[in-house]
Amino acid sequence: MSAQIETRAGYLPQKPETLAAYLSGVERVRNLLGGAPGQWNIAEVGDGNLNLVFIVKGPLGGVAVKQALPYVRLVGESWPLPLSRAHYEHMALSEQARLTGGLVPGILHYDEVQALIVMELLEPHIIMRRGMIAGTVYPKFAGDISTFMARTLFFTSDLALTAEKKKAMIGAFSGNTALCKITEDLIFTDPYRVAELNRWTSPQLDAYAARWREDGDLKVAVSRLKLKFLSSAEAMLHGDLHTGSVMLTPEDTRIIDPEFAFMGPMGFDVGAVVANFLLNYFSQDGHEKQAGDRDAYKDWVLATLEQIWTSFREKFLALWRDNPTGDAYPASLFQGAQGEARLEAERQAFMERLWTDTVGFAAAKMIRRILGLAHNIDLEWIEDKDRRASCEARALTLARDMMVNTASYSSIRAITDAARRVREEIKSY
Amino acid sequence: MSAQIETRAGYLPQKPETLAAYLSGVERVRNLLGGAPGQWNIAEVGDGNLNLVFIVKGPLGGVAVKQALPYVRLVGESWPLPLSRAHYEHMALSEQARLTGGLVPGILHYDEVQALIVMELLEPHIIMRRGMIAGTVYPKFAGDISTFMARTLFFTSDLALTAEKKKAMIGAFSGNTALCKITEDLIFTDPYRVAELNRWTSPQLDAYAARWREDGDLKVAVSRLKLKFLSSAEAMLHGDLHTGSVMLTPEDTRIIDPEFAFMGPMGFDVGAVVANFLLNYFSQDGHEKQAGDRDAYKDWVLATLEQIWTSFREKFLALWRDNPTGDAYPASLFQGAQGEARLEAERQAFMERLWTDTVGFAAAKMIRRILGLAHNIDLEWIEDKDRRASCEARALTLARDMMVNTASYSSIRAITDAARRVREEIKSY
Repeated sequence: MSAQIETRAGYLPQKPETLAAYLSGVERVRNLLGGAPGQWNIAEVGDGNLNLVFIVKGPLGGVAVKQALPYVRLVGESWPLPLSRAHYEHMALSEQARLTGGLVPGILHYDEVQALIVMELLEPHIIMRRGMIAGTVYPKFAGDISTFMARTLFFTSDLALTAEKKKAMIGAFSGNTALCKITEDLIFTDPYRVAELNRWTSPQLDAYAARWREDGDLKVAVSRLKLKFLSSAEAMLHGDLHTGSVMLTPEDTRIIDPEFAFMGPMGFDVGAVVANFLLNYFSQDGHEKQAGDRDAYKDWVLATLEQIWTSFREKFLALWRDNPTGDAYPASLFQGAQGEARLEAERQAFMERLWTDTVGFAAAKMIRRILGLAHNIDLEWIEDKDRRASCEARALTLARDMMVNTASYSSIRAITDAARRVREEIKSY
Repeated sequence: MSAQIETRAGYLPQKPETLAAYLSGVERVRNLLGGAPGQWNIAEVGDGNLNLVFIVKGPLGGVAVKQALPYVRLVGESWPLPLSRAHYEHMALSEQARLTGGLVPGILHYDEVQALIVMELLEPHIIMRRGMIAGTVYPKFAGDISTFMARTLFFTSDLALTAEKKKAMIGAFSGNTALCKITEDLIFTDPYRVAELNRWTSPQLDAYAARWREDGDLKVAVSRLKLKFLSSAEAMLHGDLHTGSVMLTPEDTRIIDPEFAFMGPMGFDVGAVVANFLLNYFSQDGHEKQAGDRDAYKDWVLATLEQIWTSFREKFLALWRDNPTGDAYPASLFQGAQGEARLEAERQAFMERLWTDTVGFAAAKMIRRILGLAHNIDLEWIEDKDRRASCEARALTLARDMMVNTASYSSIRAITDAARRVREEIKSY
């Protein structure tokens, strides 16, 4: 992180007092809100780590406004972050909208200079992580997230695109280095070394953190994953696909916040979803009010996780069978019944390789939420530190094994079985 | 290939009659040539497939001038090719010069609009392929090419670069799509399907070509390599590193023509060298004037091939140990004797993975030179078609096994042993 805060001619961070005047100049937004700017109710609600977020409501309707700051909101001006992330977010959001239709918020206005995006207001949606902490069942989620991942990953890969279009996308996203570096540092590096930003439930997990920093096999495994993250441009990733990047109701799912988007390894996105479901599963013991009152929800979490991978796999394969338009595995090489059979076997092998990547990336994302800078409220909201540490110790134990013994997790069922087993076996941190 | 020939304001293809006037306007070149432009001797000598090449000699010295045409020279205007390839060649050549010093020709002048590069005239260097056909020993070559590959691949990889610099290079080369597409089509696709541009020694190899088009395992294997070529941005590749891209004397080696450069998988460059040595080895039987008069040279070819990989491996590892400056495998994760030992084991494992890629890419490059569009004079110059086809059948047989049973070639020695064995076993095509 350099100490230089970016300046940009004309850029002004909005405040609730200035935003009405700005939005009144955008006809589409003005019409949607209705009435006069003075009637609009504006609140800054950003609870994320990086940006300003406003909710604006008028007589006719509402919008959400997201504006990048030239630094990390959570930390302040000591951690500069370029405004260009709004450019990459807008580019990814547009592509995701094209590919998945209603699974992302609608874009109403984009201002490159202001690094500002006006989007459809999602109501009464809440952040999924909060819903899962409360024990809310989302029956449509597995279907929606598997569609989102299958379509965004498949259609931006070499399986669907010509090399020319794919390379153009690689070029278009290659400047999003600052956001990628956050991932490179906070996920793949810091939790495995002494780093100022690391934190964990202390003193309970001090011995775990120390062991993680001395674990050569683990550090080699996470470094291989980092190398893959740095060098494998397989598809356009959301780049931060955890349950805090999902707003939903039981009936409607929207994926938000793709500012970490870049062309990277598919398993990174899929692994993020797997990791966050496992973290939530392990956190449920900490949210019980009476022993066993979360048992049914725990089962739903793991059953949904199984369904997410299974559906993703089926949908991705179906897209590949139906759209063999990319320069990889060209259809002309696999003609006739015999060719199709051989290609189908390779499609299955491709999904196995993607699964292996998914297991490794999921493990990395679990570990960073317990030993690194940014934690999940699934675990953070468990007030009793001993109880929280026990939940976290189970997640760490499973994650380490997933990363080092990846080959022994040959199916999603192998992971959910192991999660149940670890929960039984580890009584306390 | 679109049918559109690129036009560019101000661009004019040079002729021997126009070039003196152009060069007289470039002070550095004018001084180097000496005398008056009327005294300069200019000849067009391009025997490559794509570009114009002139040799210019004046009273004091000489230069080589390379200019891109907006189409493939070998084929004509029916196959357009963008002038931007000179831009990528110049960028790669500059980077290679910085990294390897004297192992590329010196750049004297670059004109982006004219897609024209003026370089040091290499005398009395010849194209290596011609020297190897003539049976010339190059004692310095293994040392030089291993240095070239180790330094260009290591220093442009995530092992040496920060992610930010690496992504900038990915962006800078992402536009070289037309040249990459030639590789994608001619190496990874056409030899395995009916394609107008394919040719082979016929009718002798007709059955081989037909078998190759029906071989499901082979087509899956080459498609996996193609996917890696499309999606693995490991390092800056030369992109066309065969023995026709080397000009040398027994004392001095220069690598030329990096217009196919892009950020791709390291094994593609290393495999190109391996493939061209194996093709030359198999061609030697066709160049014998008396039985056995090439035996010593064959031994030199295989011994040199072994030395190329062995030296490359050692040099790459040494660079990694001495320059742990990249964002991959960060030094901070592998401190102390134990950390260093664990990282060293991983470095060895990394080289094994790179070797596996090398074997596959080498096989692909052998097959394309026998069943695809562009052949090597090593084999083409064997006038007796039966004799040539027998040499080619041996190369094809080894290449198929290398691509499908890659794991059984665990060392360079395994390949040279197999090459000798195949030569003994296959008496005729």
